[in-house]
Amino acid sequence: MHMNLLVTLDSNYIRPLKVMLYSLFINNPSGHFDVYLMHSSISDNDIKDLEGFVSNYRQNLFVIKIDNSYFQNAPVILHYTKEMYYRLLAYKFLPKKLDRILYLDPDILVINPINELYETELDGYLYAAAYHNVIAVKEINRIRLYPYKINAYFNSGVLLMNLELQRKHIDEDKIYAFIENNRSKLILPDQDVINTLYSKQIKCLDEKLYNYDTRFYKYYKMTTNNTCDMDFIMKNTVILHFCGKKKPWRSGYSGKFYSLYKHYEIKALA
Amino acid sequence: MHMNLLVTLDSNYIRPLKVMLYSLFINNPSGHFDVYLMHSSISDNDIKDLEGFVSNYRQNLFVIKIDNSYFQNAPVILHYTKEMYYRLLAYKFLPKKLDRILYLDPDILVINPINELYETELDGYLYAAAYHNVIAVKEINRIRLYPYKINAYFNSGVLLMNLELQRKHIDEDKIYAFIENNRSKLILPDQDVINTLYSKQIKCLDEKLYNYDTRFYKYYKMTTNNTCDMDFIMKNTVILHFCGKKKPWRSGYSGKFYSLYKHYEIKALA
Repeated sequence: MHMNLLVTLDSNYIRPLKVMLYSLFINNPSGHFDVYLMHSSISDNDIKDLEGFVSNYRQNLFVIKIDNSYFQNAPVILHYTKEMYYRLLAYKFLPKKLDRILYLDPDILVINPINELYETELDGYLYAAAYHNVIAVKEINRIRLYPYKINAYFNSGVLLMNLELQRKHIDEDKIYAFIENNRSKLILPDQDVINTLYSKQIKCLDEKLYNYDTRFYKYYKMTTNNTCDMDFIMKNTVILHFCGKKKPWRSGYSGKFYSLYKHYEIKALA
Repeated sequence: MHMNLLVTLDSNYIRPLKVMLYSLFINNPSGHFDVYLMHSSISDNDIKDLEGFVSNYRQNLFVIKIDNSYFQNAPVILHYTKEMYYRLLAYKFLPKKLDRILYLDPDILVINPINELYETELDGYLYAAAYHNVIAVKEINRIRLYPYKINAYFNSGVLLMNLELQRKHIDEDKIYAFIENNRSKLILPDQDVINTLYSKQIKCLDEKLYNYDTRFYKYYKMTTNNTCDMDFIMKNTVILHFCGKKKPWRSGYSGKFYSLYKHYEIKALA
Protein backbone atom coordinates (compact mmCIF):
# COMPACT_ATOMS: atom_id res chain seq x y z
CA MET A 1 0.00 0.00 0.00
CA HIS A 2 1.25 3.46 -0.89
CA MET A 3 1.44 6.07 1.89
CA ASN A 4 2.73 9.62 2.15
CA LEU A 5 4.61 10.57 5.26
CA LEU A 6 5.62 14.04 6.43
CA VAL A 7 8.44 14.86 8.82
CA THR A 8 9.76 18.31 9.72
CA LEU A 9 12.87 18.72 11.82
CA ASP A 10 16.32 20.14 12.28
CA SER A 11 19.61 18.23 12.46
CA ASN A 12 19.28 17.51 16.17
CA TYR A 13 16.49 15.09 15.45
CA ILE A 14 18.02 13.04 12.66
CA ARG A 15 18.90 10.09 14.86
CA PRO A 16 15.44 9.81 16.45
CA LEU A 17 13.96 10.29 12.97
CA LYS A 18 15.89 7.25 11.73
CA VAL A 19 14.66 5.20 14.67
CA MET A 20 11.09 6.25 13.97
CA LEU A 21 11.37 5.48 10.26
CA TYR A 22 13.07 2.15 10.92
CA SER A 23 10.26 1.10 13.27
CA LEU A 24 7.70 2.19 10.67
CA PHE A 25 9.36 0.32 7.80
CA ILE A 26 10.02 -2.87 9.78
CA ASN A 27 6.48 -3.11 11.09
CA ASN A 28 4.92 -2.26 7.73
CA PRO A 29 6.75 -4.64 5.43
CA SER A 30 4.18 -4.28 2.65
CA GLY A 31 4.02 -0.48 2.86
CA HIS A 32 5.45 1.78 0.16
CA PHE A 33 6.33 5.08 1.70
CA ASP A 34 7.04 8.44 0.15
CA VAL A 35 8.69 10.32 2.97
CA TYR A 36 8.59 14.12 2.65
CA LEU A 37 11.13 15.97 4.75
CA MET A 38 10.53 19.69 5.25
CA HIS A 39 13.46 21.57 6.72
CA SER A 40 15.43 24.79 6.58
CA SER A 41 18.84 24.00 8.03
CA ILE A 42 19.87 20.35 7.62
CA SER A 43 23.28 20.00 5.95
CA ASP A 44 23.77 18.37 2.56
CA ASN A 45 25.76 15.58 4.20
CA ASP A 46 22.98 14.80 6.62
CA ILE A 47 20.47 14.81 3.77
CA LYS A 48 22.61 12.41 1.75
CA ASP A 49 22.94 10.15 4.75
CA LEU A 50 19.16 10.17 5.26
CA GLU A 51 18.56 9.44 1.59
CA GLY A 52 20.83 6.42 1.87
CA PHE A 53 19.07 5.28 5.02
CA VAL A 54 15.60 5.50 3.49
CA SER A 55 16.63 3.84 0.24
CA ASN A 56 18.14 0.91 2.19
CA TYR A 57 14.56 0.04 3.01
CA ARG A 58 13.52 0.64 -0.62
CA GLN A 59 11.44 3.66 0.31
CA ASN A 60 11.56 7.19 -1.15
CA LEU A 61 12.72 10.43 0.43
CA PHE A 62 11.69 13.82 -0.97
CA VAL A 63 13.37 16.85 0.53
CA ILE A 64 11.62 20.21 0.63
CA LYS A 65 13.78 23.07 1.77
CA ILE A 66 11.83 25.90 3.33
CA ASP A 67 12.98 29.48 2.99
CA ASN A 68 14.15 30.95 6.26
CA SER A 69 11.68 33.80 6.00
CA TYR A 70 8.77 31.55 6.92
CA PHE A 71 7.85 31.80 10.58
CA GLN A 72 10.94 33.93 11.12
CA ASN A 73 9.26 35.83 13.90
CA ALA A 74 7.17 33.07 15.36
CA PRO A 75 7.94 32.26 18.97
CA VAL A 76 10.28 29.35 19.60
CA ILE A 77 10.29 28.05 23.14
CA LEU A 78 11.99 25.35 25.22
CA HIS A 79 13.07 22.33 23.17
CA TYR A 80 10.77 23.27 20.30
CA THR A 81 12.08 24.50 16.98
CA LYS A 82 10.83 26.60 14.10
CA GLU A 83 10.48 23.45 12.03
CA MET A 84 7.44 22.40 13.96
CA TYR A 85 5.44 25.21 12.35
CA TYR A 86 6.02 23.70 8.94
CA ARG A 87 3.29 21.18 9.42
CA LEU A 88 0.79 24.06 9.54
CA LEU A 89 1.61 25.11 6.00
CA ALA A 90 2.67 21.75 4.64
CA TYR A 91 -0.19 21.78 2.12
CA LYS A 92 1.45 24.77 0.38
CA PHE A 93 4.82 23.09 -0.09
CA LEU A 94 3.80 19.55 -0.91
CA PRO A 95 3.11 18.42 -4.49
CA LYS A 96 -0.42 19.29 -5.59
CA LYS A 97 -1.10 15.68 -6.55
CA LEU A 98 -1.05 14.54 -2.90
CA ASP A 99 -4.49 14.38 -1.34
CA ARG A 100 -3.43 13.22 2.11
CA ILE A 101 -0.29 12.82 4.18
CA LEU A 102 0.50 11.52 7.65
CA TYR A 103 2.69 13.79 9.73
CA LEU A 104 4.73 12.06 12.46
CA ASP A 105 6.97 13.53 15.14
CA PRO A 106 10.43 11.99 15.35
CA ASP A 107 10.00 10.99 19.02
CA ILE A 108 7.80 8.09 18.02
CA LEU A 109 7.99 4.33 17.60
CA VAL A 110 5.61 2.72 15.13
CA ILE A 111 5.12 -0.80 16.45
CA ASN A 112 2.26 -2.12 14.29
CA PRO A 113 0.78 -1.68 10.81
CA ILE A 114 -0.22 1.89 10.10
CA ASN A 115 -2.50 1.43 7.08
CA GLU A 116 -5.80 1.66 8.98
CA LEU A 117 -4.75 4.97 10.46
CA TYR A 118 -3.65 6.19 7.06
CA GLU A 119 -6.99 5.28 5.49
CA THR A 120 -9.12 7.00 8.14
CA GLU A 121 -12.16 8.62 6.52
CA LEU A 122 -11.55 12.41 6.45
CA ASP A 123 -14.72 13.72 4.77
CA GLY A 124 -15.08 17.35 5.83
CA TYR A 125 -12.17 17.21 8.31
CA LEU A 126 -8.90 19.09 7.90
CA TYR A 127 -7.05 16.74 10.24
CA ALA A 128 -7.33 13.58 12.22
CA ALA A 129 -5.51 13.62 15.55
CA ALA A 130 -5.71 12.30 19.08
CA TYR A 131 -5.89 14.22 22.33
CA HIS A 132 -4.38 13.05 25.57
CA ASN A 133 -7.27 12.55 27.86
CA VAL A 134 -5.49 13.49 31.05
CA ILE A 135 -7.78 15.77 33.03
CA ALA A 136 -5.13 18.23 34.18
CA VAL A 137 -3.84 18.74 30.66
CA LYS A 138 -7.27 19.44 29.23
CA GLU A 139 -8.20 21.89 31.96
CA ILE A 140 -4.96 23.85 31.88
CA ASN A 141 -5.21 24.31 28.14
CA ARG A 142 -8.85 25.31 28.28
CA ILE A 143 -8.00 28.11 30.69
CA ARG A 144 -4.77 29.09 28.97
CA LEU A 145 -6.29 29.45 25.54
CA TYR A 146 -9.40 31.32 26.68
CA PRO A 147 -11.31 33.04 25.02
CA TYR A 148 -10.76 30.48 22.24
CA LYS A 149 -13.09 27.58 22.88
CA ILE A 150 -11.51 24.16 22.75
CA ASN A 151 -13.32 20.90 23.48
CA ALA A 152 -10.23 18.79 23.51
CA TYR A 153 -6.59 19.67 23.23
CA PHE A 154 -5.28 17.65 20.33
CA ASN A 155 -1.68 16.53 20.20
CA SER A 156 -0.07 17.53 16.91
CA GLY A 157 2.62 14.84 16.99
CA VAL A 158 0.49 12.51 14.89
CA LEU A 159 -1.55 14.37 12.30
CA LEU A 160 -3.32 12.87 9.38
CA MET A 161 -3.85 15.73 6.93
CA ASN A 162 -6.59 16.23 4.40
CA LEU A 163 -4.44 18.24 1.99
CA GLU A 164 -7.21 18.77 -0.55
CA LEU A 165 -9.45 20.44 1.99
CA GLN A 166 -6.57 22.34 3.60
CA ARG A 167 -5.67 23.97 0.30
CA LYS A 168 -9.19 25.36 0.10
CA HIS A 169 -9.81 26.27 3.73
CA ILE A 170 -6.66 27.16 5.59
CA ASP A 171 -5.80 30.84 5.59
CA GLU A 172 -2.08 31.49 6.01
CA ASP A 173 -2.61 35.09 7.16
CA LYS A 174 -4.99 33.98 9.87
CA ILE A 175 -2.26 31.75 11.27
CA TYR A 176 0.26 34.59 11.34
CA ALA A 177 -2.25 36.90 12.95
CA PHE A 178 -3.07 34.33 15.62
CA ILE A 179 0.59 33.78 16.47
CA GLU A 180 1.21 37.51 16.61
CA ASN A 181 -1.78 38.19 18.85
CA ASN A 182 -1.12 35.34 21.25
CA ARG A 183 2.63 35.35 21.42
CA SER A 184 2.74 35.41 25.21
CA LYS A 185 0.26 32.57 25.62
CA LEU A 186 1.73 30.03 23.25
CA ILE A 187 3.48 27.11 24.89
CA LEU A 188 3.27 24.45 22.19
CA PRO A 189 2.79 26.92 19.39
CA ASP A 190 1.87 24.76 16.40
CA GLN A 191 -0.42 22.67 18.56
CA ASP A 192 -2.05 25.79 19.94
CA VAL A 193 -2.74 27.04 16.43
CA ILE A 194 -4.36 23.82 15.33
CA ASN A 195 -6.40 23.53 18.50
CA THR A 196 -7.74 27.06 18.55
CA LEU A 197 -8.26 27.74 14.85
CA TYR A 198 -9.34 24.31 13.62
CA SER A 199 -10.49 22.26 16.58
CA LYS A 200 -13.94 21.57 15.10
CA GLN A 201 -12.41 20.27 11.91
CA ILE A 202 -10.22 17.68 13.60
CA LYS A 203 -11.42 14.12 13.54
CA CYS A 204 -10.67 12.42 16.81
CA LEU A 205 -8.38 9.38 16.82
CA ASP A 206 -8.08 6.90 19.67
CA GLU A 207 -4.98 7.99 21.55
CA LYS A 208 -4.41 4.47 22.90
CA LEU A 209 -3.96 3.24 19.34
CA TYR A 210 -2.47 6.18 17.49
CA ASN A 211 -0.79 8.50 19.93
CA TYR A 212 -0.02 6.57 23.09
CA ASP A 213 1.72 8.94 25.50
CA THR A 214 4.46 6.77 27.04
CA ARG A 215 4.48 8.83 30.24
CA PHE A 216 1.01 7.67 31.20
CA TYR A 217 1.18 3.85 31.25
CA LYS A 218 -0.38 3.61 34.69
CA TYR A 219 -3.02 6.20 33.94
CA TYR A 220 -4.16 4.44 30.75
CA LYS A 221 -4.20 1.10 32.53
CA MET A 222 -6.13 2.38 35.51
CA THR A 223 -8.71 4.34 33.52
CA THR A 224 -9.47 1.33 31.29
CA ASN A 225 -9.97 -1.17 34.09
CA ASN A 226 -6.64 -2.78 33.23
CA THR A 227 -7.68 -3.38 29.62
CA CYS A 228 -4.92 -1.18 28.28
CA ASP A 229 -2.09 -3.27 29.67
CA MET A 230 1.22 -4.16 28.05
CA ASP A 231 -0.37 -7.00 26.11
CA PHE A 232 -3.06 -4.73 24.68
CA ILE A 233 -0.52 -2.08 23.76
CA MET A 234 1.85 -4.40 21.94
CA LYS A 235 -1.04 -6.02 20.10
CA ASN A 236 -3.06 -2.91 19.22
CA THR A 237 -1.17 0.31 19.68
CA VAL A 238 0.36 1.55 16.46
CA ILE A 239 2.14 4.67 17.66
CA LEU A 240 4.07 5.06 20.89
CA HIS A 241 4.79 8.74 21.43
CA PHE A 242 7.67 9.62 23.77
CA CYS A 243 6.17 12.97 24.76
CA GLY A 244 7.71 15.43 27.14
CA LYS A 245 11.16 16.73 27.86
CA LYS A 246 12.75 13.44 28.88
CA LYS A 247 13.68 11.55 25.75
CA PRO A 248 14.66 7.87 25.50
CA TRP A 249 17.73 8.65 23.38
CA ARG A 250 19.16 10.86 26.15
CA SER A 251 20.99 9.50 29.16
CA GLY A 252 19.12 9.23 32.43
CA TYR A 253 15.85 8.31 30.78
CA SER A 254 13.84 5.52 32.28
CA GLY A 255 10.33 4.33 31.68
CA LYS A 256 8.15 1.42 30.69
CA PHE A 257 9.18 1.54 27.05
CA TYR A 258 12.87 2.30 27.46
CA SER A 259 14.18 -1.17 26.57
CA LEU A 260 11.93 -1.32 23.53
CA TYR A 261 13.06 2.09 22.33
CA LYS A 262 16.75 1.36 22.82
CA HIS A 263 16.43 -1.97 21.03
CA TYR A 264 14.93 -0.21 18.01
CA GLU A 265 17.50 2.55 18.24
CA ILE A 266 20.44 0.14 18.14
CA LYS A 267 18.95 -1.79 15.21
CA ALA A 268 18.12 1.40 13.32
CA LEU A 269 21.53 3.00 13.75
CA ALA A 270 23.63 -0.15 13.43
CA MET B 1 26.44 -19.94 9.42
CA HIS B 2 25.16 -23.32 10.59
CA MET B 3 24.28 -23.72 14.28
CA ASN B 4 22.74 -26.47 16.39
CA LEU B 5 20.26 -25.47 19.02
CA LEU B 6 18.83 -27.58 21.83
CA VAL B 7 15.57 -26.98 23.67
CA THR B 8 13.90 -29.26 26.18
CA LEU B 9 10.42 -28.53 27.47
CA ASP B 10 6.85 -29.60 28.03
CA SER B 11 3.71 -28.16 26.42
CA ASN B 12 3.41 -25.33 28.94
CA TYR B 13 6.45 -23.67 27.45
CA ILE B 14 5.59 -23.81 23.76
CA ARG B 15 4.51 -20.19 23.55
CA PRO B 16 7.63 -18.81 25.25
CA LEU B 17 9.70 -21.18 23.10
CA LYS B 18 8.23 -19.62 19.97
CA VAL B 19 9.03 -16.15 21.26
CA MET B 20 12.60 -17.19 22.01
CA LEU B 21 13.04 -18.82 18.60
CA TYR B 22 11.47 -15.86 16.80
CA SER B 23 13.86 -13.45 18.53
CA LEU B 24 16.77 -15.73 17.63
CA PHE B 25 15.80 -16.05 13.96
CA ILE B 26 14.98 -12.37 13.48
CA ASN B 27 18.22 -11.17 15.01
CA ASN B 28 20.32 -13.76 13.19
CA PRO B 29 19.12 -13.37 9.62
CA SER B 30 22.13 -15.18 8.15
CA GLY B 31 22.00 -18.08 10.63
CA HIS B 32 20.95 -21.59 9.61
CA PHE B 33 19.58 -23.34 12.64
CA ASP B 34 18.96 -26.99 13.31
CA VAL B 35 16.70 -26.90 16.34
CA TYR B 36 16.61 -30.13 18.37
CA LEU B 37 13.63 -30.47 20.65
CA MET B 38 13.87 -33.10 23.38
CA HIS B 39 10.59 -33.89 25.11
CA SER B 40 8.48 -36.67 26.56
CA SER B 41 4.92 -35.37 26.59
CA ILE B 42 4.24 -32.79 23.88
CA SER B 43 1.22 -33.72 21.75
CA ASP B 44 1.47 -34.46 18.03
CA ASN B 45 -0.60 -31.38 17.27
CA ASP B 46 1.73 -29.14 19.20
CA ILE B 47 4.71 -30.70 17.46
CA LYS B 48 3.13 -30.13 14.06
CA ASP B 49 2.41 -26.55 14.97
CA LEU B 50 6.02 -26.05 16.07
CA GLU B 51 7.35 -27.62 12.89
CA GLY B 52 5.25 -25.17 10.88
CA PHE B 53 6.47 -22.28 12.98
CA VAL B 54 10.14 -23.16 12.56
CA SER B 55 9.84 -23.86 8.84
CA ASN B 56 8.18 -20.44 8.33
CA TYR B 57 11.60 -19.03 9.11
CA ARG B 58 13.25 -21.63 6.85
CA GLN B 59 14.92 -23.37 9.76
CA ASN B 60 14.84 -27.06 10.72
CA LEU B 61 13.21 -28.74 13.67
CA PHE B 62 14.24 -32.22 14.81
CA VAL B 63 12.14 -33.86 17.48
CA ILE B 64 13.62 -36.35 19.90
CA LYS B 65 11.10 -38.08 22.09
CA ILE B 66 12.54 -39.30 25.36
CA ASP B 67 11.26 -42.41 27.03
CA ASN B 68 9.40 -41.68 30.24
CA SER B 69 11.68 -43.97 32.22
CA TYR B 70 14.51 -41.44 32.14
CA PHE B 71 14.70 -39.37 35.30
CA GLN B 72 11.44 -40.90 36.42
CA ASN B 73 12.43 -40.67 40.04
CA ALA B 74 14.42 -37.48 39.88
CA PRO B 75 13.07 -34.69 42.07
CA VAL B 76 10.83 -32.13 40.37
CA ILE B 77 10.27 -28.97 42.34
CA LEU B 78 8.39 -25.69 41.99
CA HIS B 79 7.89 -24.57 38.39
CA TYR B 80 10.61 -26.93 37.16
CA THR B 81 9.87 -30.00 35.09
CA LYS B 82 11.48 -33.31 34.35
CA GLU B 83 12.43 -32.04 30.92
CA MET B 84 15.11 -29.84 32.36
CA TYR B 85 17.19 -32.92 33.16
CA TYR B 86 17.34 -33.81 29.49
CA ARG B 87 20.11 -31.34 28.88
CA LEU B 88 22.34 -33.41 31.18
CA LEU B 89 22.12 -36.42 28.89
CA ALA B 90 21.55 -34.64 25.60
CA TYR B 91 24.83 -36.01 24.20
CA LYS B 92 23.33 -39.52 24.35
CA PHE B 93 20.23 -38.68 22.35
CA LEU B 94 21.61 -36.29 19.77
CA PRO B 95 23.03 -37.51 16.45
CA LYS B 96 26.62 -38.63 16.77
CA LYS B 97 27.72 -36.30 13.98
CA LEU B 98 27.06 -33.21 16.12
CA ASP B 99 30.16 -31.93 17.87
CA ARG B 100 28.54 -29.00 19.65
CA ILE B 101 25.13 -27.61 20.44
CA LEU B 102 23.80 -24.55 22.21
CA TYR B 103 21.12 -25.24 24.79
CA LEU B 104 18.74 -22.35 25.49
CA ASP B 105 15.94 -22.03 28.03
CA PRO B 106 12.61 -20.89 26.63
CA ASP B 107 12.42 -17.86 28.98
CA ILE B 108 14.95 -16.02 26.86
CA LEU B 109 15.08 -13.28 24.26
CA VAL B 110 17.97 -13.34 21.80
CA ILE B 111 18.44 -9.71 20.81
CA ASN B 112 21.72 -9.77 18.88
CA PRO B 113 23.79 -12.14 16.70
CA ILE B 114 24.66 -15.35 18.48
CA ASN B 115 27.48 -16.65 16.28
CA GLU B 116 30.36 -15.51 18.49
CA LEU B 117 28.85 -17.31 21.44
CA TYR B 118 28.32 -20.40 19.32
CA GLU B 119 31.93 -20.41 18.16
CA THR B 120 33.43 -20.07 21.67
CA GLU B 121 36.60 -22.16 21.94
CA LEU B 122 35.77 -25.24 24.05
CA ASP B 123 39.09 -27.11 24.13
CA GLY B 124 39.01 -29.34 27.20
CA TYR B 125 35.73 -27.92 28.50
CA LEU B 126 32.47 -29.85 28.71
CA TYR B 127 30.38 -26.69 28.76
CA ALA B 128 30.49 -22.95 28.46
CA ALA B 129 28.09 -21.09 30.73
CA ALA B 130 27.72 -17.91 32.73
CA TYR B 131 27.18 -17.46 36.42
CA HIS B 132 25.17 -14.67 37.96
CA ASN B 133 27.62 -12.72 39.99
CA VAL B 134 25.23 -11.63 42.69
CA ILE B 135 26.96 -12.12 46.02
CA ALA B 136 23.98 -13.55 47.89
CA VAL B 137 23.33 -16.17 45.21
CA LYS B 138 26.92 -17.37 45.17
CA GLU B 139 27.16 -17.63 48.93
CA ILE B 140 23.89 -19.43 49.46
CA ASN B 141 24.78 -22.03 46.88
CA ARG B 142 28.27 -22.50 48.26
CA ILE B 143 26.79 -23.34 51.66
CA ARG B 144 23.88 -25.36 50.32
CA LEU B 145 25.99 -27.62 48.16
CA TYR B 146 28.71 -28.23 50.75
CA PRO B 147 30.76 -30.47 50.83
CA TYR B 148 30.91 -30.15 47.03
CA LYS B 149 33.26 -27.32 46.22
CA ILE B 150 31.96 -24.77 43.77
CA ASN B 151 33.80 -21.65 42.70
CA ALA B 152 30.91 -20.13 40.90
CA TYR B 153 27.34 -21.22 40.55
CA PHE B 154 26.73 -21.45 36.82
CA ASN B 155 23.29 -20.86 35.37
CA SER B 156 22.26 -23.72 33.12
CA GLY B 157 19.78 -21.69 31.06
CA VAL B 158 22.41 -20.98 28.43
CA LEU B 159 24.76 -23.90 27.93
CA LEU B 160 27.14 -24.35 25.08
CA MET B 161 27.90 -28.05 25.00
CA ASN B 162 31.03 -29.83 23.85
CA LEU B 163 29.25 -33.01 22.77
CA GLU B 164 32.38 -34.78 21.65
CA LEU B 165 34.01 -34.45 25.03
CA GLN B 166 30.76 -35.16 26.90
CA ARG B 167 30.38 -38.50 25.14
CA LYS B 168 33.78 -39.50 26.48
CA HIS B 169 33.66 -38.02 29.96
CA ILE B 170 30.16 -37.80 31.35
CA ASP B 171 29.07 -40.79 33.39
CA GLU B 172 25.31 -41.28 33.44
CA ASP B 173 25.36 -43.41 36.58
CA LYS B 174 27.27 -40.77 38.46
CA ILE B 175 24.49 -38.29 37.71
CA TYR B 176 21.81 -40.64 39.00
CA ALA B 177 23.82 -41.38 42.13
CA PHE B 178 24.32 -37.70 42.79
CA ILE B 179 20.60 -36.94 42.45
CA GLU B 180 19.70 -39.86 44.67
CA ASN B 181 22.19 -38.90 47.38
CA ASN B 182 21.30 -35.22 47.40
CA ARG B 183 17.58 -35.34 46.85
CA SER B 184 16.79 -33.11 49.81
CA LYS B 185 19.34 -30.45 48.90
CA LEU B 186 18.51 -29.95 45.24
CA ILE B 187 16.69 -26.75 44.42
CA LEU B 188 17.55 -26.25 40.78
CA PRO B 189 18.37 -29.88 40.16
CA ASP B 190 19.97 -29.90 36.71
CA GLN B 191 21.94 -26.81 37.55
CA ASP B 192 23.09 -28.34 40.81
CA VAL B 193 24.33 -31.41 38.97
CA ILE B 194 26.33 -29.43 36.48
CA ASN B 195 27.78 -27.16 39.14
CA THR B 196 28.83 -29.87 41.55
CA LEU B 197 29.98 -32.60 39.19
CA TYR B 198 31.51 -30.54 36.38
CA SER B 199 32.22 -27.04 37.64
CA LYS B 200 35.91 -27.19 36.73
CA GLN B 201 35.10 -28.16 33.17
CA ILE B 202 32.79 -25.24 32.54
CA LYS B 203 34.22 -22.35 30.57
CA CYS B 204 32.99 -19.07 31.93
CA LEU B 205 30.96 -16.78 29.70
CA ASP B 206 30.29 -13.12 30.37
CA GLU B 207 26.82 -13.05 31.91
CA LYS B 208 26.26 -9.46 30.75
CA LEU B 209 26.55 -10.65 27.16
CA TYR B 210 25.25 -14.19 27.20
CA ASN B 211 23.00 -14.67 30.17
CA TYR B 212 21.78 -11.29 31.35
CA ASP B 213 19.48 -11.83 34.32
CA THR B 214 16.66 -9.35 33.71
CA ARG B 215 15.91 -9.06 37.43
CA PHE B 216 19.20 -7.34 38.12
CA TYR B 217 19.27 -4.28 35.84
CA LYS B 218 20.19 -1.92 38.68
CA TYR B 219 22.75 -4.29 40.12
CA TYR B 220 24.57 -4.72 36.80
CA LYS B 221 24.49 -0.99 36.18
CA MET B 222 25.75 -0.10 39.62
CA THR B 223 28.52 -2.69 39.72
CA THR B 224 29.87 -1.59 36.34
CA ASN B 225 30.02 2.09 37.10
CA ASN B 226 27.01 2.68 34.85
CA THR B 227 28.72 1.05 31.87
CA CYS B 228 26.14 -1.68 31.63
CA ASP B 229 23.24 0.66 30.95
CA MET B 230 20.34 0.19 28.55
CA ASP B 231 22.42 1.39 25.64
CA PHE B 232 25.20 -1.13 26.37
CA ILE B 233 22.71 -3.95 26.78
CA MET B 234 20.86 -3.34 23.54
CA LYS B 235 24.13 -2.97 21.68
CA ASN B 236 26.08 -5.86 23.22
CA THR B 237 23.93 -8.27 25.15
CA VAL B 238 22.97 -11.29 23.09
CA ILE B 239 20.79 -13.16 25.57
CA LEU B 240 18.27 -11.65 27.97
CA HIS B 241 17.23 -14.31 30.46
CA PHE B 242 13.93 -13.77 32.28
CA CYS B 243 15.00 -15.76 35.33
CA GLY B 244 12.90 -16.37 38.38
CA LYS B 245 9.31 -17.23 39.07
CA LYS B 246 7.77 -14.08 37.61
CA LYS B 247 7.54 -14.50 33.87
CA PRO B 248 6.86 -11.78 31.30
CA TRP B 249 4.19 -13.85 29.55
CA ARG B 250 2.14 -14.05 32.75
CA SER B 251 -0.12 -11.26 33.96
CA GLY B 252 1.12 -9.00 36.70
CA TYR B 253 4.71 -9.04 35.47
CA SER B 254 6.57 -5.79 35.32
CA GLY B 255 10.19 -4.99 34.79
CA LYS B 256 12.69 -3.12 32.68
CA PHE B 257 12.35 -5.46 29.72
CA TYR B 258 8.62 -6.04 29.82
CA SER B 259 7.70 -3.89 26.82
CA LEU B 260 10.48 -5.46 24.77
CA TYR B 261 9.37 -8.98 25.67
CA LYS B 262 5.72 -8.32 24.95
CA HIS B 263 6.58 -6.72 21.62
CA TYR B 264 8.49 -9.84 20.58
CA GLU B 265 5.76 -12.07 21.93
CA ILE B 266 3.04 -10.39 19.88
CA LYS B 267 5.15 -10.52 16.72
CA ALA B 268 6.12 -14.15 17.30
CA LEU B 269 2.59 -15.37 17.97
CA ALA B 270 0.78 -13.17 15.44
